[in-house]
Amino acid sequence: MDEFEIIRRYFKPGKKSASVIVGVGDDGAVLRPDPERDFISVVDTMVESIHFPANMHAEDIGFRAVAVNVSDIAAMGGRPRWMTLALTMKEADPAWIEDFARGIHLAGDRFGVELVGGDTTRGGEIVISVQVMGDVRPGQAMTRSGARPGDGIYVSGTPGDAALGLSIMQSGQVLDDRLKYLVRRFTRPDARVELGQEIADVASAAIDLSDGLFTDLEKLLGASAVSGCIELNRIPMSQELRSTIQGEDAIRFVLGGGDDYELCFTAAVDEIDELAGVPVTRIGNVGEGRGLTCTLDGITYDYHDDGYRHFR
Amino acid sequence: MDEFEIIRRYFKPGKKSASVIVGVGDDGAVLRPDPERDFISVVDTMVESIHFPANMHAEDIGFRAVAVNVSDIAAMGGRPRWMTLALTMKEADPAWIEDFARGIHLAGDRFGVELVGGDTTRGGEIVISVQVMGDVRPGQAMTRSGARPGDGIYVSGTPGDAALGLSIMQSGQVLDDRLKYLVRRFTRPDARVELGQEIADVASAAIDLSDGLFTDLEKLLGASAVSGCIELNRIPMSQELRSTIQGEDAIRFVLGGGDDYELCFTAAVDEIDELAGVPVTRIGNVGEGRGLTCTLDGITYDYHDDGYRHFR
Repeated sequence: MDEFEIIRRYFKPGKKSASVIVGVGDDGAVLRPDPERDFISVVDTMVESIHFPANMHAEDIGFRAVAVNVSDIAAMGGRPRWMTLALTMKEADPAWIEDFARGIHLAGDRFGVELVGGDTTRGGEIVISVQVMGDVRPGQAMTRSGARPGDGIYVSGTPGDAALGLSIMQSGQVLDDRLKYLVRRFTRPDARVELGQEIADVASAAIDLSDGLFTDLEKLLGASAVSGCIELNRIPMSQELRSTIQGEDAIRFVLGGGDDYELCFTAAVDEIDELAGVPVTRIGNVGEGRGLTCTLDGITYDYHDDGYRHFR
Repeated sequence: MDEFEIIRRYFKPGKKSASVIVGVGDDGAVLRPDPERDFISVVDTMVESIHFPANMHAEDIGFRAVAVNVSDIAAMGGRPRWMTLALTMKEADPAWIEDFARGIHLAGDRFGVELVGGDTTRGGEIVISVQVMGDVRPGQAMTRSGARPGDGIYVSGTPGDAALGLSIMQSGQVLDDRLKYLVRRFTRPDARVELGQEIADVASAAIDLSDGLFTDLEKLLGASAVSGCIELNRIPMSQELRSTIQGEDAIRFVLGGGDDYELCFTAAVDEIDELAGVPVTRIGNVGEGRGLTCTLDGITYDYHDDGYRHFR
């Protein structure tokens, strides 16, 4: 099975939507974006054994490759619409490709993203670059750089679950329902698209959690040239996480664990506890100066975390 | 040097053009496309040792990664405007990255493409996915599927040079000016952007030559559900190629060699010999039925070439 057959069999959609003038199978995709909206383009690469375990189910790999990109669109308050897929793999294993493609299409259906093109190449390992394109009301895209002293710092959902789920998956232990929930938080991240669009009206800055709450919030604060302080007691933890790990271990996963794809944002409002059906929690405050500090039980908590770095 | 420093040092442009609302360094790029035009998105991946020799100069690798994508935009008659870069590499070698980034920016300047985002990750080998975005007059994008019986088959420039240049480069021989010219045809492909826009008015179908004239033309004819016949005597060969190889060898490179990034198109016109300053040659005709055949000195020439396949 060569790459042309792979594309024809697994990646050619049955019908195109009206916004897709030319789709999969030509030199490129031709789209007709909404002229009333700004255009958003994001790209994230996932490398075997770096971003996901090599033995992870191919359907999950495909789903996740789309979801993590949709999450970037969500963090800008945008609406995801189209995607391209650049897939590099060592060999063309039909069973793997079929599962992977199903994951891509499942995520496409879940998030309303249509596959419009891509490139399939051979290489020494699996490398997946998905590019998701979408749109946003003109001038309304959220960035990382608008946080102001006095804003509250908010996070959606319960951070830490996905990193804990990954470590559980890698441990090879038998999974009960609680552990399955945590693993699924890693394998099937639920990009917060509706939430991102809802907070666009109130948020001063936003970022999605891919490298870990502490390091991603540091990026937002740095881009905004402000400082932040988070109260660890306020960070919401899932019942599943709390019944698996406690104390310092829990803090380490919640602050340092990546792959949550929750949204972290700042807003000049007193309290938000839910938006678009997603729980949202105020975990701290933006201040003058620079840097991110934490408190636990009212006392400064010395936490250092560089977050994930590919290169050091 | 971590990936954030790499992006800040080598990939952050000094200023953004007016169409770029949010550029490198946020969750994604926010663009303001021309509302009067259709949007084009293309993506091509280049893998070390598959698409280019591992010891190729990093500046050439960077230039080429952009040019091959711009070529896809050219084949649709479009105007390239923005790009994102997904770069995977084994280690962060500052000298390599500096050269590579210079190549990216050189090509960006050459083709008028602005870097607006990307992703930098670690992996076992160099994998480069460049996505180029651009635009085209509404409904005017050329595809592979419009060729009709009676159309002429045209090719720009002199195919075969780049594949010959690659084989010369890999042979390690000392390069005189003639060989340098051929090598440069591989390392610095000149995507035919102006030509693509000029032929959009007359061409019924078009494709850019990446996998080889024979196999790429086969794709165009297949997508158009027509047949084609090319006269080998008509295929233009560069003086540099002709003085390096002759006879069957020359035919093999001209028909089967890839990486030319010339345009091949069909048009219901009698003769075109130059457009946008690029030599264009009629090499054959479109007919009824299916398949691609060749003639040499008026006699059927039996040529079989599957073109490059990543998987078989």
